[in-house]
Amino acid sequence: MTTTAKTKKVIVYVRLKDGVLDPQGVTIQKALGQMGYPDFVSVRSGKFFELEIDAGASDIDRQINEVCSKLLANPVIERFSVEKI
Amino acid sequence: MTTTAKTKKVIVYVRLKDGVLDPQGVTIQKALGQMGYPDFVSVRSGKFFELEIDAGASDIDRQINEVCSKLLANPVIERFSVEKI
Repeated sequence: MTTTAKTKKVIVYVRLKDGVLDPQGVTIQKALGQMGYPDFVSVRSGKFFELEIDAGASDIDRQINEVCSKLLANPVIERFSVEKI
Repeated sequence: MTTTAKTKKVIVYVRLKDGVLDPQGVTIQKALGQMGYPDFVSVRSGKFFELEIDAGASDIDRQINEVCSKLLANPVIERFSVEKI
C-alpha cells in the first residue's frame, strides 16, 4: 500500500453513466429516509481503484486507459476518470 | 442527478483501512498480470457515494458524518472521507 519512489500511483474512478439506473443508490437513499435523514434527496454510487504501476513501465497512460476499458469499467454503462497522484 | 441551487453535493469516499485484506483488489491485480499488464504492482478497491442534500437542512455536517458511520461505511474495517463540491 505504500508508494515507493519506483511506483506511480493513480486512482481510477468508475461511475454509472447519466441515465443508467443505480439501484444501490436508490436503495441507500430510501434507507436514509427511513432512518430519519429525509434531507438526502439523491444518492449515486460508484467505485474507485488505487493502482500502483511500476514507474519504469512504458506507455503508462495507454496501459491505464486499456486497463480501465477492458477490466475496471464496463464502457456500455459506465464511464471512468483517472487521477494521478 | 443534476444539482440545483437548492441542494448541496458531497462525495463520500469509503476505503478499507490499511492492513485489511482487499480480495477484490488482489484478484484484479492478478487478472491484470494474466492479461499482459505485469507493471501494475498493487490494486486497492474502494467505493464512493455522491450525495445531494437539501441546502436548507440543519446540521448538514453532522448528518453527513452520522450517515457515513451508520450506513455508508463499516467503521470496523473501513474509513471514509468527505469532499464537498
